[in-house]
Amino acid sequence: MNIYDISKQAGVSIATVSRVLNGSPNVKPSTRRKVMEVIDRYGYTPNAFARGLGLDTMNSIGIICADSSDLYLAKAVYYIEGNLRKNGYNCILTCSGYEHGDKESALTLMINQRVDAVILAGSNYIETDTDRNLYIRNAAAQIPVFLLNADMDCPNVFCTMCDDFKATQEAAAALIDSGVTDILYLYNSHSYSGLRKLEGYQSACHMRNIAVSGELMQFYEGSREDIDGVCRFLCGLHEQGLSFHAVLASEDMLAAGAVKYAKLQGIDIPGDLAVIGYNNSLLTTCSDPEISSIDNHLETLCAQLVRTCISVLNGEDMPPKVIYSGELIQKGTTRLPVSGSQK
Amino acid sequence: MNIYDISKQAGVSIATVSRVLNGSPNVKPSTRRKVMEVIDRYGYTPNAFARGLGLDTMNSIGIICADSSDLYLAKAVYYIEGNLRKNGYNCILTCSGYEHGDKESALTLMINQRVDAVILAGSNYIETDTDRNLYIRNAAAQIPVFLLNADMDCPNVFCTMCDDFKATQEAAAALIDSGVTDILYLYNSHSYSGLRKLEGYQSACHMRNIAVSGELMQFYEGSREDIDGVCRFLCGLHEQGLSFHAVLASEDMLAAGAVKYAKLQGIDIPGDLAVIGYNNSLLTTCSDPEISSIDNHLETLCAQLVRTCISVLNGEDMPPKVIYSGELIQKGTTRLPVSGSQK
Repeated sequence: MNIYDISKQAGVSIATVSRVLNGSPNVKPSTRRKVMEVIDRYGYTPNAFARGLGLDTMNSIGIICADSSDLYLAKAVYYIEGNLRKNGYNCILTCSGYEHGDKESALTLMINQRVDAVILAGSNYIETDTDRNLYIRNAAAQIPVFLLNADMDCPNVFCTMCDDFKATQEAAAALIDSGVTDILYLYNSHSYSGLRKLEGYQSACHMRNIAVSGELMQFYEGSREDIDGVCRFLCGLHEQGLSFHAVLASEDMLAAGAVKYAKLQGIDIPGDLAVIGYNNSLLTTCSDPEISSIDNHLETLCAQLVRTCISVLNGEDMPPKVIYSGELIQKGTTRLPVSGSQK
Repeated sequence: MNIYDISKQAGVSIATVSRVLNGSPNVKPSTRRKVMEVIDRYGYTPNAFARGLGLDTMNSIGIICADSSDLYLAKAVYYIEGNLRKNGYNCILTCSGYEHGDKESALTLMINQRVDAVILAGSNYIETDTDRNLYIRNAAAQIPVFLLNADMDCPNVFCTMCDDFKATQEAAAALIDSGVTDILYLYNSHSYSGLRKLEGYQSACHMRNIAVSGELMQFYEGSREDIDGVCRFLCGLHEQGLSFHAVLASEDMLAAGAVKYAKLQGIDIPGDLAVIGYNNSLLTTCSDPEISSIDNHLETLCAQLVRTCISVLNGEDMPPKVIYSGELIQKGTTRLPVSGSQK
């Protein structure tokens, strides 16, 4: 017996069931009765329903991320935890790693805790093969699920995202408009957001009538902290004769490796090589020159995600998706006439 | 009624009370009876005692850190959470910030959850004014408290630390032995570990008969992420005529600022300025040249802290302090004949 079953049996929407369970005043007494009758009839109260039924709950929300020590995810966890705390919720943190099976079991374990909701931080929870997202669908049948930077159409799943496609598309278009036609797109994740960024790059090439070459889309398989590995990887491409006058990277770490590569090869930045990273993290100010980077306004995203979460738990109707825009912050590695987002 | 009261009333040690409460088999039946009688007599069972009394617990451990998005603390939270999870414990995360009052209320709130133990990650929880550590003493009267990189003598408090004093002393001594007598010590925290590092620097100067000048110990008050602010700060000192041929920093972020400063002023690294950071973080490989840094083996510290925590919760006797050594990892910003830790 989950929220879908109740909705079906009672002949009301899932949102209405949620409102009843959360004790919202905006429910007709007759509707409330109908829902409660179904719940009573089946005599089953999953943990997450305890709250609405007046039972003791921990006021806890689960945060699952792949790796809380990753620069970007660490910020996300920090912002989400702070906003939850201000709203009187504890956060139970679990790092799931990046493997599908581990993500699935992390979510199952979290559901078995008495959490009121679960937040999946980072786009790597959604895969293109929708069968592999079934575990999230199953979780959402029990408690509301909130996705940071991932997109999924499913009842009781709420997405707060940056439009990574558009931000990357604009940055690539700005590079092309500045005269660079051989942009190396460097990425290290097949996550939802990773693929959207890649598509943004491809779209900009199509829009500007530039052939998208497979050679210019390079996937870096090394560790997420091995900046020197990225540098070696690019030196290898250079030695193989691949020519590129810009590196558009899906992450600042990759961009930092590109800056190191240019220095090692004596290539002038931004004169002979423009570099753009993603996330506008601390790494961008550490490099020399500082790295131009797309800022996806993580603090704003996290604040909104928690607002949505609290509203849903209070039984309010909330839109399933909220989308923000990214913004290219120009620093020392580009000299573009306008920022991508001003185009 | 807390663990001290029970220990006193029952006439047994705190460790014994802990063993009884945790259901350890290594307790004489008569002793167990004595302890249980005291608990029964007062009819009071704090949350954390529930476990030993066979009541339902959440198997949760609280982690409190100042800021989980800080590079170093993010790693600490990640390692601790992973180790706790492997041992079947959830982690409830709270970021307290750096203010005394906020730290105190974060700990109080955490105690009010049904956590079995609390971990304070980061040395900023311990201050030199022992009155200000009373809140930890009070917490330890209720549940075991585990400190990462901080030192406190108190029953039911367990410390896992790196010897920051010795590591900094060795690094400073190695710089002096290489011929640098004007080492600028740059720090940004008055935490326990921050002060131990400062003392290590001072001690090395004393050992090598070098006068410790107040001007050469500079406290940076800016944001913990403002590398450019550190750069400006050092430029200011330079303009005031302060002379220094090495920067020994209490954190990699400060060292990254020093590298930027040297570049801006055209000072050769490591020829005319040696730079040493602390934590051996990602920032060290991002800078050019890469930054020599003291590695305090955070992963090992965190694994040990969790081992101690699980053992204590299982009613085993554990030493109140475990201390590891740090190690200077030489990269591009120093050219010292031997690493500090090999001295």
